[in-house]
Amino acid sequence: MIGKLNHVAIAVANLDEAVKTYSQSLGAKVSPPQDLPEHGVRVVFVELPNSKIELLSPLGAESPITAFLAKNPVGGMHHICYEVDNIATAITKLQADGVRILGDGKPKIGAHGKPVIFMHPKDMGGVLIELEEV
Amino acid sequence: MIGKLNHVAIAVANLDEAVKTYSQSLGAKVSPPQDLPEHGVRVVFVELPNSKIELLSPLGAESPITAFLAKNPVGGMHHICYEVDNIATAITKLQADGVRILGDGKPKIGAHGKPVIFMHPKDMGGVLIELEEV
Repeated sequence: MIGKLNHVAIAVANLDEAVKTYSQSLGAKVSPPQDLPEHGVRVVFVELPNSKIELLSPLGAESPITAFLAKNPVGGMHHICYEVDNIATAITKLQADGVRILGDGKPKIGAHGKPVIFMHPKDMGGVLIELEEV
Repeated sequence: MIGKLNHVAIAVANLDEAVKTYSQSLGAKVSPPQDLPEHGVRVVFVELPNSKIELLSPLGAESPITAFLAKNPVGGMHHICYEVDNIATAITKLQADGVRILGDGKPKIGAHGKPVIFMHPKDMGGVLIELEEV
């Protein structure tokens, strides 16, 4: 069912510092910051030859990153996103296996404009997993 | 400097359960478990079209995964590994930027038989990053 590793999302406390670390110390290609107010994040993409890293920092009072950074003040790995061909099929399969989909169980439009779901980390070995229909 | 995302390593409390989750619920291709006693882990590879996930469980009393699982009993994302062409050049560059290399600062032979280093998570935004020479 799952296809490519679309991205790993890393929550960062200081986006400027993180950009410096990835672009200078690690020598990676880094995009300009983009504000995604509907997702409550300011994001920078680290472009790798086979996948990408998303550096997420909080934007606005309702950011989903705020609570994570309260627990992990230095930052850390936030979630991992895999691609699927058909998200409706994925939801049916996962729910049949007892996996909880976060929210109302229906796909939302994600940061890349495509349907996404997140699964409950307790049903996925402690990892927050996003599936994105491509 | 960094090239491909070589793997994301996920520490798991129960390897059999994790294999079931990734192979059945997520429908991914999963390798048979391999014991790597010199690294203190039993590992299963989840093979994705563009990268891989390593599911790590502790092996032996000195496992580097034990302390992580004590803090994260359900499991969680443990580290992320990027490829580099030349690990000696990478070490020189990182140390010049004030990034601490774990251990004695010299490469070790990693789980794939290639030279690897790990950087101090506090110098990398809270993320444990491995570099592997390919």
